[in-house]
Amino acid sequence: MTGWFETTDSTDEEIMAATYRALCAHGYAGTTISRIGEEFEKSQSLLYYHYDDKDDLLADFLAYLLDRLEADLQDTEMTEPRQRLTALFEKLAPSDPDEAQRQFFQALLEMRAQTPHNPAYRDQFERSDALIVAELTETIEAGIEQGTFVEVDADRTAAFLYSTLYGTLDRCVTLGEWELFDQTRRELDRYVETTLLADVAED
Amino acid sequence: MTGWFETTDSTDEEIMAATYRALCAHGYAGTTISRIGEEFEKSQSLLYYHYDDKDDLLADFLAYLLDRLEADLQDTEMTEPRQRLTALFEKLAPSDPDEAQRQFFQALLEMRAQTPHNPAYRDQFERSDALIVAELTETIEAGIEQGTFVEVDADRTAAFLYSTLYGTLDRCVTLGEWELFDQTRRELDRYVETTLLADVAED
Repeated sequence: MTGWFETTDSTDEEIMAATYRALCAHGYAGTTISRIGEEFEKSQSLLYYHYDDKDDLLADFLAYLLDRLEADLQDTEMTEPRQRLTALFEKLAPSDPDEAQRQFFQALLEMRAQTPHNPAYRDQFERSDALIVAELTETIEAGIEQGTFVEVDADRTAAFLYSTLYGTLDRCVTLGEWELFDQTRRELDRYVETTLLADVAED
Repeated sequence: MTGWFETTDSTDEEIMAATYRALCAHGYAGTTISRIGEEFEKSQSLLYYHYDDKDDLLADFLAYLLDRLEADLQDTEMTEPRQRLTALFEKLAPSDPDEAQRQFFQALLEMRAQTPHNPAYRDQFERSDALIVAELTETIEAGIEQGTFVEVDADRTAAFLYSTLYGTLDRCVTLGEWELFDQTRRELDRYVETTLLADVAED
């Protein structure tokens, strides 16, 4: 995700890039419109012109992130289903996140914890979960069709895989225990081998 | 967890019960010492005498919850390992939580999202994760010893199961999608059957 904000070519994108930097630096609770303004190279008044308050801006930021994620997932080549699953795992929960990515995940989780009080955030996170689960489901279905995977309930398996990835990411972020990551990724591989792969599971 | 606060027999426990009710009613962000005081039947000055601020009180509340969880897990009979796993899943992520439990989980997740900024919270959540993973590990080890489970890496499998449960709970709470719960619990059963149970996996 870090690469997303390296080049910007419009005021809207510059606002999004400034929001990203402010969230990495200050976390969700510490981010204010004025702190986003400090990261923004144009006039701060543009921010106040576009947005009523911080929550308004951040809901827009989440929508922007999702558009990028959607495009990014669509760009991920539909190679061999097993490889694609691993590529999706890596994209959703990178095994070696840098400091900026860690801080960004942390800010995202703080925002997600706000969803019960903030319908605009919830809408975006609902969309992101649906998008991710659909992508995983499609990959599993392709694998079943090609005979690589056994005939599982693709939706249910996708929801399970995503819950595991999400839970691991959340535990790593909230406890700062990044070594958990490798451990769970290895266990996910074992799960895919044991319950999904046709040649192993049907032996 | 709801049953924990039905009877109280000391000022300390009454403070904890009042904190629980305030968190259910107002969420983490909306909970203040004064709102806990509104739920407390004795003099509010007792709260200010015991605690410097809300975070101080809530860190103590987390420690108290963990003591209860620890006692509760130790009381869970060590029956047949497979049954015990299911009993632990149910205890950690009840399949049919009532409204108070849902609100309470929500408040807990909000507190957990604060851990990067609050070392006292992090200490408690580290302890809770370690406690839960140890309990799952012990159950898996007992199953391996008895020949019910195949020889897996018990620590890694326990961490994986907990991440899945935790991720599911988090997704349900933040999106209000409680039907996800049943789905993932069924998939967890499938995982236990396919990768853990000796008679299935070794056929």
